[in-house]
Amino acid sequence: MNAEIDFGEWLSRVRRERPLVHGIFGPVVAGRVADALLAVGASPVMARAPEEVADVARGAGAVTLSLGMLDAQSLAAMLAAGQAAGGAGVPVVFDPVGVGATAYRAEAAARLAAQLRLAVLRGNRGEIGWMLGTGGRVRGVDAVTGGAGLEAAMQAWARSRASVVVATGAVDLVADGTRVLRLGNGDPVLAAVAGTGCQLTALIGAWIAVAGPRPALARVAEAAAAAITSFNVAAELAREVARGPGSFPAALLDALWDLTGERVARRARVEILQV
Amino acid sequence: MNAEIDFGEWLSRVRRERPLVHGIFGPVVAGRVADALLAVGASPVMARAPEEVADVARGAGAVTLSLGMLDAQSLAAMLAAGQAAGGAGVPVVFDPVGVGATAYRAEAAARLAAQLRLAVLRGNRGEIGWMLGTGGRVRGVDAVTGGAGLEAAMQAWARSRASVVVATGAVDLVADGTRVLRLGNGDPVLAAVAGTGCQLTALIGAWIAVAGPRPALARVAEAAAAAITSFNVAAELAREVARGPGSFPAALLDALWDLTGERVARRARVEILQV
Amino acid sequence: MNAEIDFGEWLSRVRRERPLVHGIFGPVVAGRVADALLAVGASPVMARAPEEVADVARGAGAVTLSLGMLDAQSLAAMLAAGQAAGGAGVPVVFDPVGVGATAYRAEAAARLAAQLRLAVLRGNRGEIGWMLGTGGRVRGVDAVTGGAGLEAAMQAWARSRASVVVATGAVDLVADGTRVLRLGNGDPVLAAVAGTGCQLTALIGAWIAVAGPRPALARVAEAAAAAITSFNVAAELAREVARGPGSFPAALLDALWDLTGERVARRARVEILQV
Repeated sequence: MNAEIDFGEWLSRVRRERPLVHGIFGPVVAGRVADALLAVGASPVMARAPEEVADVARGAGAVTLSLGMLDAQSLAAMLAAGQAAGGAGVPVVFDPVGVGATAYRAEAAARLAAQLRLAVLRGNRGEIGWMLGTGGRVRGVDAVTGGAGLEAAMQAWARSRASVVVATGAVDLVADGTRVLRLGNGDPVLAAVAGTGCQLTALIGAWIAVAGPRPALARVAEAAAAAITSFNVAAELAREVARGPGSFPAALLDALWDLTGERVARRARVEILQV
Repeated sequence: MNAEIDFGEWLSRVRRERPLVHGIFGPVVAGRVADALLAVGASPVMARAPEEVADVARGAGAVTLSLGMLDAQSLAAMLAAGQAAGGAGVPVVFDPVGVGATAYRAEAAARLAAQLRLAVLRGNRGEIGWMLGTGGRVRGVDAVTGGAGLEAAMQAWARSRASVVVATGAVDLVADGTRVLRLGNGDPVLAAVAGTGCQLTALIGAWIAVAGPRPALARVAEAAAAAITSFNVAAELAREVARGPGSFPAALLDALWDLTGERVARRARVEILQV
Repeated sequence: MNAEIDFGEWLSRVRRERPLVHGIFGPVVAGRVADALLAVGASPVMARAPEEVADVARGAGAVTLSLGMLDAQSLAAMLAAGQAAGGAGVPVVFDPVGVGATAYRAEAAARLAAQLRLAVLRGNRGEIGWMLGTGGRVRGVDAVTGGAGLEAAMQAWARSRASVVVATGAVDLVADGTRVLRLGNGDPVLAAVAGTGCQLTALIGAWIAVAGPRPALARVAEAAAAAITSFNVAAELAREVARGPGSFPAALLDALWDLTGERVARRARVEILQV
């Protein structure tokens, strides 16, 4: 099934078009996210002042939002950036980090999901399960479980919201309402490094930014699957040279930097289900 | 005297229990702190919004607070998190980074120390000397001196406040009102890397979080000493593979990741004084 | 012409005097900036609370300000720190990151330039071109072009403002109103790593901090040129051991850490023009 996704073509597009990706991420991980975007050839802008986020968002190729280090200012910034993006046809990727851990975080996530037109909702299985009401549980920012019926709930959400849903875990799921893609790459060390989930969210934004004007849901899902698989294959390659979670982040960026479509295709584990 | 502390047992507990450590650190170092917690197997949550910190703190195994990049919001967040932790029996570790450098920082530290029930006060010798009135001097965020009579002042504070006090330096001091532990591990390169002091503060929180319910002061002091010695031995091991302060942080995380109690015990330099 | 700048003497001064450099940088890059200052032997203080920045600035050897992650609080902090520095004779280096990308950023940069007495204005060619009205263009935070007549405009600004102007790019330009220094070191990978421009801004501050009391413009220009060339030679040395933009930042800090004046002089490409 891998033949359906031309990983090299996606990588080439990102490197050639150098999409501007506007990211609103917590300060814990924002530097790491910017580095990941630079490593694939994209151009990060991490503006977060309410006074300028709308201007930045309208000029971006994608807007990527994360609850990471949520506070009143970042929430206002995410709403303003997301609404400006929606009005300008710029795709929005939303990552409800740690949703369900506190009431404040739950309300913020619900508000963003209600008020924004999302191209992609991306979280770990616990976060997505929580957002979709299947009983996801999180502990801190780690998923415990996504609950039963996660794939069906993802498809229902995708259809009713006309949005792709991504739930990452040992197997990553991408749902577009018609198909579910199951992606099997990655390495457990990703969970021992702060910000890898946010890096992935930003890269999904970069891939969607080069998917062409007003891409159909299936095309957005393919972009997300290509980004996820590329990122996870880079993680596998990095794991071969890293000694642990300390040396891993640098090795991951190095691997993203000289990743080739061939290298991704050779390792890619993609299963596409018509549901 | 090392036989009194079972470093391996402490490490195993942290890795098995994966304590949730709530940290409020400045954005300069927050990512590095989160990485250190992940590298030892703990679970970091860096929430700082006044609206949610109390919820997060009550559910955590330890709350760790740093003046690092102090501002009005982070001060309010630290007070709210610390008070919620106190009410729920969650231990609080406070790191008065750069105290004494400005009046604002001095007032904030005094307020936090007055209003919170601290399990551990941890700083470098200059910061602790300043807090305890022995004439500590700081320059920027670096200790110049802790002043004379530091150990006696630490013991007096520990007794009057029922709190462990840690003053780090070439020799690290841990006082619990009865004993003073002098810890001799570490490497000078730690001072050439931003955030290593904050990493240590957070790890002390992780170790205390697995010390059992309502631990006695002597037990808290042992946890702190075990955390400090483990961190400093990891620093020594990292120094052997790092080429300088650039490659050191990754090597430190790698060393924490595969640290063993045996490796710590073999190098540990711990002197315990009944005072 | 390299003989005119004694790179080793500048490096020795920084390492001996350990200047306190006050930096107000966005959280995306602040940790990386602090690490760079530590690696050359300077002492970073990243305070940003309006309540204390004036105190910190007055006691610093240099104040370095960046629009990086601009918001109302950081703008107020930069104005307060810059004005306190001006009153105390502490040199100020200002980096108008991403100026021109949004109206908010343009207004903030104009306000800072109007209200502060700058020792150095430093940006990439796009940012400096925008500030000086030669038609600089930026995309995100990347320069597209500095426009025509950039060197002449830099000289005019330097004379009218009694301030050094630095425009970085493939060739870095330093103008002091009398001379233009063209600096040819560096490596393209610097553009693939977040925060390297801000690191350079901070190092220029450290070099100026050891230039002696109330240095003349030509002396400030020499300090800036020495800092830039040292940083860029370290980048060249780092590039020889790094595998990509992931491993590069650590290698850069390692190279700064054990840089020698001889190593800088051997590689330095400095052209000095009387204009």
